[in-house]
Amino acid sequence: MSMTIYQASIPVFIRMLENLSSILDKAVAHAEAKKIDPAIFINARLAPDMYPLNRQIQIATDVVKACAARLAGIEVPSYEDNESTFPELQARIAKTVAFLQSVSAEQINDSEERKITLKLHDKATGFLGQTYLFNFVFPNFYFHLTVAYTILRHNGLEIGKMDFVGDY
Amino acid sequence: MSMTIYQASIPVFIRMLENLSSILDKAVAHAEAKKIDPAIFINARLAPDMYPLNRQIQIATDVVKACAARLAGIEVPSYEDNESTFPELQARIAKTVAFLQSVSAEQINDSEERKITLKLHDKATGFLGQTYLFNFVFPNFYFHLTVAYTILRHNGLEIGKMDFVGDY
Repeated sequence: MSMTIYQASIPVFIRMLENLSSILDKAVAHAEAKKIDPAIFINARLAPDMYPLNRQIQIATDVVKACAARLAGIEVPSYEDNESTFPELQARIAKTVAFLQSVSAEQINDSEERKITLKLHDKATGFLGQTYLFNFVFPNFYFHLTVAYTILRHNGLEIGKMDFVGDY
Repeated sequence: MSMTIYQASIPVFIRMLENLSSILDKAVAHAEAKKIDPAIFINARLAPDMYPLNRQIQIATDVVKACAARLAGIEVPSYEDNESTFPELQARIAKTVAFLQSVSAEQINDSEERKITLKLHDKATGFLGQTYLFNFVFPNFYFHLTVAYTILRHNGLEIGKMDFVGDY
């Protein structure tokens, strides 16, 4: 049996977003226990010219909602990017998961060779569906998820790689 | 045309390791230009109980060499984990890429449903080939690649996400 592009994308995105959501729950509990203003975590960065935690999560969710929509050939949902609290970030993750769940295998399968054109750095870049998933979506998605993890870890949250990769 | 597990794995791993190699070249040039001992970067960590740069790269390469071997049903190459300089880390990346290139599509395809058993946290965990790739290998590989990137970025290396995700 061969793989399908649906199996390679939607359930994987949902699983990783659920792991992220659990990590944010731990951050909230940690901030409460230590009496740290949650905004300190939300606005934390690993370098002055890197994005803070909330923007990392906005971009991670952007990447996968756009992927699901483009592979399905439907309009990419537009989000406002105005999340500045943990509950708002959790709502954004939940909204993204709900959208991903709304896209069916039938809509996505056979998009392996669909032409996808993105505007990157002011030039149009064309991908086939599967190249888009493996060379663009995954590296970008995992990059922002991991940076979100490292921002919290660097700032003292007691999490480990199992929180990131999830249980098996 | 459906995807193959080879396309989803080996060329993706090689591409990302080549991006990592380019980032390490930039780190070496930066250390030279700023007269910083390269060992400072090699031993840098984002938290006292996170692994330093060299170990992140050892694990990232471990994950993909093991994946290629397990999907192909051949022995996983054993590396010594003794790299402590940038040239040694580059050699490890090159050795890993050469091993990945030695595994053919014919050896790997049809491993989507091969049973793969890993010992994780002292218990045996079974995966099918494609679940192993998407739920274990990719999250682990990208995690360690991104942590390596953020260690360097946090320590002042002037790199951007395009260095991580690569050109298109």
